[in-house]
Amino acid sequence: MAEIAWNKLGAYLKETQILGSIQNTLYWDQNTGMPKKGASWRSEQLTYIAKVLHQRNSSEEFANLIKSASIELLDSERHYKNPQIIQEKKRNIELLEKEFNRQRNLDPKLVESLAKAKSIGYESWQEAKKKSDFEIFLPFFEELIKLRIEEAKQISEIYSPWETLAQPFEPDLTLKWLNNMFQPLRETIPSLLSAINKSNKNSWDLSPESQQNLCSKLLDEFGRNKDLVVVAKSPHPFSITLGPNDYRITTRIVEGEPFSSFLATAHEWGHSIYEQGLPSQSHQWFAWPLGQATSMGVHESQSLFWENRIVKSKSFSKRFFKKFVAEGCALKNHLELWKSINHLQAGLNRVEADELTYGLHILIRTELEIDLIEGDLEAKDIPYEWNKRYEELLGIRPSNDSEGCLQDVHWSEGAFGYFPSYLLGHLISAQISSQMERDIGLIDNLIENGEYEKIIFWLKNNIHKHGRSVNSMELVRNITGEELSSEYFINHLKTKINDFC
Amino acid sequence: MAEIAWNKLGAYLKETQILGSIQNTLYWDQNTGMPKKGASWRSEQLTYIAKVLHQRNSSEEFANLIKSASIELLDSERHYKNPQIIQEKKRNIELLEKEFNRQRNLDPKLVESLAKAKSIGYESWQEAKKKSDFEIFLPFFEELIKLRIEEAKQISEIYSPWETLAQPFEPDLTLKWLNNMFQPLRETIPSLLSAINKSNKNSWDLSPESQQNLCSKLLDEFGRNKDLVVVAKSPHPFSITLGPNDYRITTRIVEGEPFSSFLATAHEWGHSIYEQGLPSQSHQWFAWPLGQATSMGVHESQSLFWENRIVKSKSFSKRFFKKFVAEGCALKNHLELWKSINHLQAGLNRVEADELTYGLHILIRTELEIDLIEGDLEAKDIPYEWNKRYEELLGIRPSNDSEGCLQDVHWSEGAFGYFPSYLLGHLISAQISSQMERDIGLIDNLIENGEYEKIIFWLKNNIHKHGRSVNSMELVRNITGEELSSEYFINHLKTKINDFC
Repeated sequence: MAEIAWNKLGAYLKETQILGSIQNTLYWDQNTGMPKKGASWRSEQLTYIAKVLHQRNSSEEFANLIKSASIELLDSERHYKNPQIIQEKKRNIELLEKEFNRQRNLDPKLVESLAKAKSIGYESWQEAKKKSDFEIFLPFFEELIKLRIEEAKQISEIYSPWETLAQPFEPDLTLKWLNNMFQPLRETIPSLLSAINKSNKNSWDLSPESQQNLCSKLLDEFGRNKDLVVVAKSPHPFSITLGPNDYRITTRIVEGEPFSSFLATAHEWGHSIYEQGLPSQSHQWFAWPLGQATSMGVHESQSLFWENRIVKSKSFSKRFFKKFVAEGCALKNHLELWKSINHLQAGLNRVEADELTYGLHILIRTELEIDLIEGDLEAKDIPYEWNKRYEELLGIRPSNDSEGCLQDVHWSEGAFGYFPSYLLGHLISAQISSQMERDIGLIDNLIENGEYEKIIFWLKNNIHKHGRSVNSMELVRNITGEELSSEYFINHLKTKINDFC
Repeated sequence: MAEIAWNKLGAYLKETQILGSIQNTLYWDQNTGMPKKGASWRSEQLTYIAKVLHQRNSSEEFANLIKSASIELLDSERHYKNPQIIQEKKRNIELLEKEFNRQRNLDPKLVESLAKAKSIGYESWQEAKKKSDFEIFLPFFEELIKLRIEEAKQISEIYSPWETLAQPFEPDLTLKWLNNMFQPLRETIPSLLSAINKSNKNSWDLSPESQQNLCSKLLDEFGRNKDLVVVAKSPHPFSITLGPNDYRITTRIVEGEPFSSFLATAHEWGHSIYEQGLPSQSHQWFAWPLGQATSMGVHESQSLFWENRIVKSKSFSKRFFKKFVAEGCALKNHLELWKSINHLQAGLNRVEADELTYGLHILIRTELEIDLIEGDLEAKDIPYEWNKRYEELLGIRPSNDSEGCLQDVHWSEGAFGYFPSYLLGHLISAQISSQMERDIGLIDNLIENGEYEKIIFWLKNNIHKHGRSVNSMELVRNITGEELSSEYFINHLKTKINDFC
């Protein structure tokens, strides 16, 4: 059958993908190699690429290519013998149309104002954080909120404004559904937290070299292919894909936090192995929407799985204890290592939070931003509300804005709707882990036998290879036979706390 | 005065420069960070950028912008009070027109054929070198020669075909002039070589860590600003500029060659400090031709200056001897270090050659390629002629094509006219060193006192800051008051050989 329009659209998407991957390469270099003074020119390069990408993604030419491919597909439908192929093609068109329409409905003036507001927002946030003064950030934050509400209105989907802003991160998410997911956590975690023995962290550390060696051994253990995955250092750990066979991850050393780089490596490995498993083997799929991750929540579930279900497990501590000792760790046995790596304690910092309290950090942020976008909360009251809710939920109170409401970058770039993904990731990870154990046996046993390949094979077949063919809720339903719920995650937390006593 | 057309042209050039610097960033990452399997996608990214750059550099729009700016400049000439400004502007236009015309005269089909031939040529050369079999490369080499001769004819400048191909590397070079430069070297170096005591190199080495430490100390010594210059490792050392304030250099460790990484670092530092001194402080000049290096020969003169006049000097050995000892070097005193780093011995490899024999490697290549392009030499006879001339000039004979005529990459990409730049660099370095000593005192004394800043200041003011405002021959004449000649380089060699005895 003729696929002329289809191939033309594919060629267009591929060129867009080439530009996108160049953007990623510039970003990678900026964070891992670039000298400080290179920043201003790098920003000119990135602005240029962003401009070209925006033009491509909202052009009349692109609209026509999608339309022609769609018509051609309908005309030739009956020639396809494999119903899956036609279904995938339709899904590709559907996703392209959805994204294009989001772009098209926006007033170009608003797009421009938003780009500026994000850039200034980020700058003012940096200064505000440094000086620990929310007032510096406030006027720019207010502008960002105003513009993003306007954006949501212009997109005018079937969703409420906050839901609309959250769609790019978690397609098809609704507030009602989210509330169903999070309410049980809100009710359970604080009581679990109050039940644990309060103990301070051991204050010990590992040398940067030892931490680097352990990270390297960890990736060897997981089966990293060095010809495919490159590791570097950056101020904030991240994972990024620069091409169909080019994966990069970074980590960082945090003084006084001997597990920080190790856990970050496991976390970023999880993101990377998801991307590696996406249907990206051929250039064709790399460029089409179906070759992408289905949501940020699923992406997080993959990183959290490797961080929490693998590295924070008892059997992993058993397996890696000698390697820690060889690098100068003075803990007496693998149980001490396990307790140390799993230390549970309410803290003010989301990024360094443990499995138990992490969810509370997210609940607070999610509720605050929904109140900002859809409710009565005013931006100026954020510091007060933030501190109040930390006191209520975590029992601790930030002493200043820098360690309080200014700690995270997301809002400074107007990114509303992103935070819930982190917690949804915990929920998805717990629920699919449970199914994984039913399918291929206890994760603890798999780790004990070093059967990571088996784990990766399961993840790849059940999650990674489906790309964006289904949304996250359908994915979980398909794998586990039930809707996503918070039950599995709560059970996991309870088991861990019991184990501690 | 109105500079409307001028500013439009500047904006166009800036966007071209942004793309060019993105190309450089991709190249940098490819050589310093990219995992092996990323190569195929990277090549797609680079092909895309090359295509866009070619379109921009040969577009009707660009031609019109140059034309309008040129007319505007003539119209407003009388308004400029500073004659230097108008002169610089005219030179910019002149250089832009020159390059544009080179592009415009070319048949697009030839451009395409050449791009393909270069890519296949490089691939076949890699295979041929690996298997040490020139026959594999021969048909592709023949095609490259044919196409490049055709290219030279289409450009149809006032120059002969080989001269035409050499223009981008050494503007205004003629065969007659080159012969005047090189003939004395051809006559002198072989006799100097036969006069030195033949001794084998000491076989000792330094650990990779020690070599890395020494390279790092070397750059500290030279005053590297870490916020401006980043260092990494790559298979072949190079220096590259990614933005007006973003300089990168690489080095590599060669087993059994304890000075290789050290000398390469000095060499690449020389290239980098030239680029750092170019009139690139403002984005405007970074994008205009005048902000560029004037020729490959001058570029090489800067790298060779730091490698040979600084690091291979006696006073430098004196200054750095203790640092070598601290890294495990067992040489007894600084004179031994000096002799070791300056070891003179004819070898087959250009890249690892000493100061004395390096020129012979270049003479052979230059003569061979001139004979190929303008004379009777046939490509198939290259291995025979190569080996014959090595025997004649250096008294040694390659045992196979891999260590003979296949050793260098240049011809595989059809780059004819590049090799002389290396030797011209030696000549320029020697002649300007002599002037530098007249201006600010003996280089040996400056090194002894660690007065690198003074040296850099002199280089910057006499060479770097002039960018492309004059060609290399005028530059040398302006600095030294005489035409470039081989005399200074030959004297330098004689002095060094005398010192050895």
